[in-house]
Amino acid sequence: MNYLQQTMKRVLMGPGPSDVDPRVLEALSRPTLGHLDPHFLEILDEVREQLKYVFRTTNELTLAMSGTGSAGMETCFANLVEPGDPVLVCINGVFGMRMADVAERCGAVVSRIEVEWGKVFDSEQIEQALKNKPAKVVSIVHAETSTGAGQPLEEISEIVHNHGALLLVDAVTSLGGMQLEVDAWRIDACYSGSQKCLSCPPGLSPVTFSSAAVKKMDQRKAKVQSWYLDLSMIRQYWGGERLYHHTAPVNMNYALLEALKMVSEEGLEHRWQRHVNNHQILKAGLEAIGIQFLAQPGHQLPMLNAVAVPEKVEDLAVRRQLLQEFGIEIGGGLGAFKGKAWRIGLMGASATQGNVMLFLAALEKCLAAQPYRFEKGAALAAAIAKAEN
Amino acid sequence: MNYLQQTMKRVLMGPGPSDVDPRVLEALSRPTLGHLDPHFLEILDEVREQLKYVFRTTNELTLAMSGTGSAGMETCFANLVEPGDPVLVCINGVFGMRMADVAERCGAVVSRIEVEWGKVFDSEQIEQALKNKPAKVVSIVHAETSTGAGQPLEEISEIVHNHGALLLVDAVTSLGGMQLEVDAWRIDACYSGSQKCLSCPPGLSPVTFSSAAVKKMDQRKAKVQSWYLDLSMIRQYWGGERLYHHTAPVNMNYALLEALKMVSEEGLEHRWQRHVNNHQILKAGLEAIGIQFLAQPGHQLPMLNAVAVPEKVEDLAVRRQLLQEFGIEIGGGLGAFKGKAWRIGLMGASATQGNVMLFLAALEKCLAAQPYRFEKGAALAAAIAKAEN
Repeated sequence: MNYLQQTMKRVLMGPGPSDVDPRVLEALSRPTLGHLDPHFLEILDEVREQLKYVFRTTNELTLAMSGTGSAGMETCFANLVEPGDPVLVCINGVFGMRMADVAERCGAVVSRIEVEWGKVFDSEQIEQALKNKPAKVVSIVHAETSTGAGQPLEEISEIVHNHGALLLVDAVTSLGGMQLEVDAWRIDACYSGSQKCLSCPPGLSPVTFSSAAVKKMDQRKAKVQSWYLDLSMIRQYWGGERLYHHTAPVNMNYALLEALKMVSEEGLEHRWQRHVNNHQILKAGLEAIGIQFLAQPGHQLPMLNAVAVPEKVEDLAVRRQLLQEFGIEIGGGLGAFKGKAWRIGLMGASATQGNVMLFLAALEKCLAAQPYRFEKGAALAAAIAKAEN
Repeated sequence: MNYLQQTMKRVLMGPGPSDVDPRVLEALSRPTLGHLDPHFLEILDEVREQLKYVFRTTNELTLAMSGTGSAGMETCFANLVEPGDPVLVCINGVFGMRMADVAERCGAVVSRIEVEWGKVFDSEQIEQALKNKPAKVVSIVHAETSTGAGQPLEEISEIVHNHGALLLVDAVTSLGGMQLEVDAWRIDACYSGSQKCLSCPPGLSPVTFSSAAVKKMDQRKAKVQSWYLDLSMIRQYWGGERLYHHTAPVNMNYALLEALKMVSEEGLEHRWQRHVNNHQILKAGLEAIGIQFLAQPGHQLPMLNAVAVPEKVEDLAVRRQLLQEFGIEIGGGLGAFKGKAWRIGLMGASATQGNVMLFLAALEKCLAAQPYRFEKGAALAAAIAKAEN
């Protein structure tokens, strides 16, 4: 084991984890308390209050699940769905596909609607799908990390509720980085991850549930198939009774609380705006050297910039050089986009003008070693011009 | 939020988490790397090698699940059991009960055998149960955290395998604190937690699987019902292909590796002996003031000392005073032992002579405020005498 390797500091500009502020790392390393210690229970109460703030909700059933974002996804399906329940899953990337897989494993009868990767759904498509086949739950990804597409939710929510269904939203990549309104948009179940725009290390999954979702859970006939993710028990630990269920990841909750405090100190709207500003600077720079965004114009995510790897440019060689020479991590493509996409994250603490400029300079250097023609310096010039606006 | 509260340092002598060494807390707080970063993948490789050492196994499928010990339990059942599989669950405390619940949620047809809480199973009981009703999997708890009873496994393993079943063992509390021999005892599936005798914060669950267990998984017809815990995918991330499944809890793996290094630096056998020594000192002290152990003589765990709350002594008042005046956390009783037991942990970094002496002194002070007669100073005197042996 080489300790130098283990302590290496990267610039995390991939699809998550994002850079973690030293304040959060310091909180993570505080002495471990017992999971039933009164002081730790106060910390959990505060985690819940801070999560309500970032989710924009008053939902009492708001907490951090003891797993990563995918555990949050499974929590939502395992608790909301009973075997045989019809569920409509909207798929425009990897995480929609994952939702369908998870829902089926939970016994749902899944209907899928799909649009091309990079595109978003029109509310009429959802309306049509629900007319064709009613569903008890409609699930959709707010920010598709595999394509960089941001899905508008307000109209879809209205349609879903008009059809008597519950709306389940994947906000893994969006929470804390762009507008998400759990209450105002009537989202019934929503999950996220600690390591994206909240800039906490990976390991916890914030979730929140509306009273309608809680009602459906309360009326379950079958036990939740996952003991570990069973909210009927976990609620009694996070709630008043403080019944032991499993040993909460104590230190991870310290870190999440500190990360959430940093969000509320910055102010959620300011944080959203910071993500947009840095995305626009990055985009100006990339487009100036001919790099194309993959997501539908008007729906490109600020925190996850998915772009096409230019023809003849060697995906892996560029990403390896970025990592080795500059310590910059960006993501490659997943699924249908494997080998064809770069996913450049500007999430939470990573969404800084400094990172944008560093990345563009580093990318220009790496592209100069590739069979790719572009005007040297153009990316930075365009980015600086955009930043001065 | 009171920061002083959050940074409070306790003496963790409950059923886990145990005290975490500053070296481990420092590792936890190192800069976050990406979950596909080549350096992080090297760290995972080393976690696996170190886990093989503590599990005493050469099993290739050895890794840390991204959840707490109960997620490890569910991982074992969800992957090994297919709907309709007959499973024998041995119950002598809370965690045996939990195994039966989890197994049923995974679709197992569960048979239960039970012995009184605090007692351990005789190999003949297992033999008889398997003769009455064959099972594909037999599950049993090595160290029952709710009762302090340690279950011998060697003979049982032979019987289980003679009946063609797989042996699934809960080693949450035993791993790193007492002899556990995954290969020599032919344990097919074994799970633990990071926060007990490994003295890492809670949040990861080490698991290991024999080739027979892997073979059963490979022959599955049904998908594993939990996507998050599906080893057929997780193996491809921990193994050679490095396929993305979920974002590993990066910093928690740093901490686990550091904690495991501390185990191997101490040497596993020395560590087991340290636990026994401190248990004996504690036991001498407690018995000198009339405190009785709840587990069967000869099978009392070194790391989890479950004792009866003496008559007329107020359980909660004593535990509150220990916490408030001395910062010492011990556990109360669970389930059948609720209000009747104290569970005094001596796990990993908490298993020190200093902690034993501090605890006995503190307990004497707290008991002096209760309607309980004992010779003041006797606990410490007996402990010191034992320690001098």
